[in-house]
Amino acid sequence: MEIKIMKNILNRNQNKADEVRSLLALKNVLMVNIISSPGAGKTTLLEKTCETLAPKFRIGVVEGDITTDRDAQRLKKYNIPIVVINTEGGCHLDSHSISKVLDSFDLDNLDILFVENVGNLICPSQFDLGETFKLAMVSTTEGDDKPAKYPMLFREARAILLNKIDLIPYTNFNRGNFRSDLKNINSKVPLFEISCTRGDGLRNWFDWISDQNLKPNLTSSRL
Amino acid sequence: MEIKIMKNILNRNQNKADEVRSLLALKNVLMVNIISSPGAGKTTLLEKTCETLAPKFRIGVVEGDITTDRDAQRLKKYNIPIVVINTEGGCHLDSHSISKVLDSFDLDNLDILFVENVGNLICPSQFDLGETFKLAMVSTTEGDDKPAKYPMLFREARAILLNKIDLIPYTNFNRGNFRSDLKNINSKVPLFEISCTRGDGLRNWFDWISDQNLKPNLTSSRL
Repeated sequence: MEIKIMKNILNRNQNKADEVRSLLALKNVLMVNIISSPGAGKTTLLEKTCETLAPKFRIGVVEGDITTDRDAQRLKKYNIPIVVINTEGGCHLDSHSISKVLDSFDLDNLDILFVENVGNLICPSQFDLGETFKLAMVSTTEGDDKPAKYPMLFREARAILLNKIDLIPYTNFNRGNFRSDLKNINSKVPLFEISCTRGDGLRNWFDWISDQNLKPNLTSSRL
Repeated sequence: MEIKIMKNILNRNQNKADEVRSLLALKNVLMVNIISSPGAGKTTLLEKTCETLAPKFRIGVVEGDITTDRDAQRLKKYNIPIVVINTEGGCHLDSHSISKVLDSFDLDNLDILFVENVGNLICPSQFDLGETFKLAMVSTTEGDDKPAKYPMLFREARAILLNKIDLIPYTNFNRGNFRSDLKNINSKVPLFEISCTRGDGLRNWFDWISDQNLKPNLTSSRL
């Protein structure tokens, strides 16, 4: 019974996601759905990305959180449009809530819309929001076994960000194990090894995401 | 509609959880439902706990994972009964799966059953498994804002373990902010500040959990 219910929920979500995707394609907006565990560094990534790319691209942000607007507060200083979705206990964003908040953005004057999903390595990967692609973020302090243990997201993501590489010396994180597990799950996905707080590797990420924006929505994750 | 469906699912889960709780009370088994984000250190906590307490108590473990038996493999060396539940994509354990695996344990010869839930700070806190109590674990590298951003678990937990305190010097984790947010959510909950890899603070945790076992199930989290 629960499987049937889940199928219905996912079908309804998919229909609305398809609508969102068509609208964004029409408006030529790249939508990036950022998914990670709590505290992997999504907001810090957005801070660094806005700092460097907001002068070049028209950036907007949707902040998905169970409660509080703390992440949005951290991004206020970049003077970009930000909308908070509080899920009030819900473990992921869905396409209906995204569809609603798109009204708050001037899509004709937007290049990239970053969606910071609720901190959760599992549920958000099952809900298409109509994004151009999903971005998986994982931090070294979570351990090198995350791709093997939570494969869905790593299989779906267009790129992987491995954050907090500055902390590797203080943990038992094994780069070889991480890369080899990831390769088994998604052999060709680009991997960016970064430290959002220290800046390591961010240049490659900025270049890559800028390059994606030059050809937005032509190759959506669901097309 | 979805709210009604969720209510039905939660009601069915609650009925089975009540059965599990009665059985464990009858058998005088303490069941601890350990909940955290991916990679916060649940398995390392169990390693250290088995190492120290397995000679004193008859310990069993249920390992909840989406896929793989990697965590269970790490605990094999303690010669304790371990059962793996692979949720195959499911984001939490439920009372039905726990009820089924209880048959695999000799409950007459068990003092403590640790349940390592799926790595997820949200969904597992909504599903009663019939446990004696929930234990919330969070690591310093996730940031000091987790109790405020994910309040449900911190409100429900009988105790909080703050892990990876050895990494505080390398992060922007602020102990004062963490404690003050936690106090707002659950003012009297015991907080253990520990490092599972280095051993800091574990003695207090061992003493506390040993003390819980002396009076199991008399004050269940739902009674």
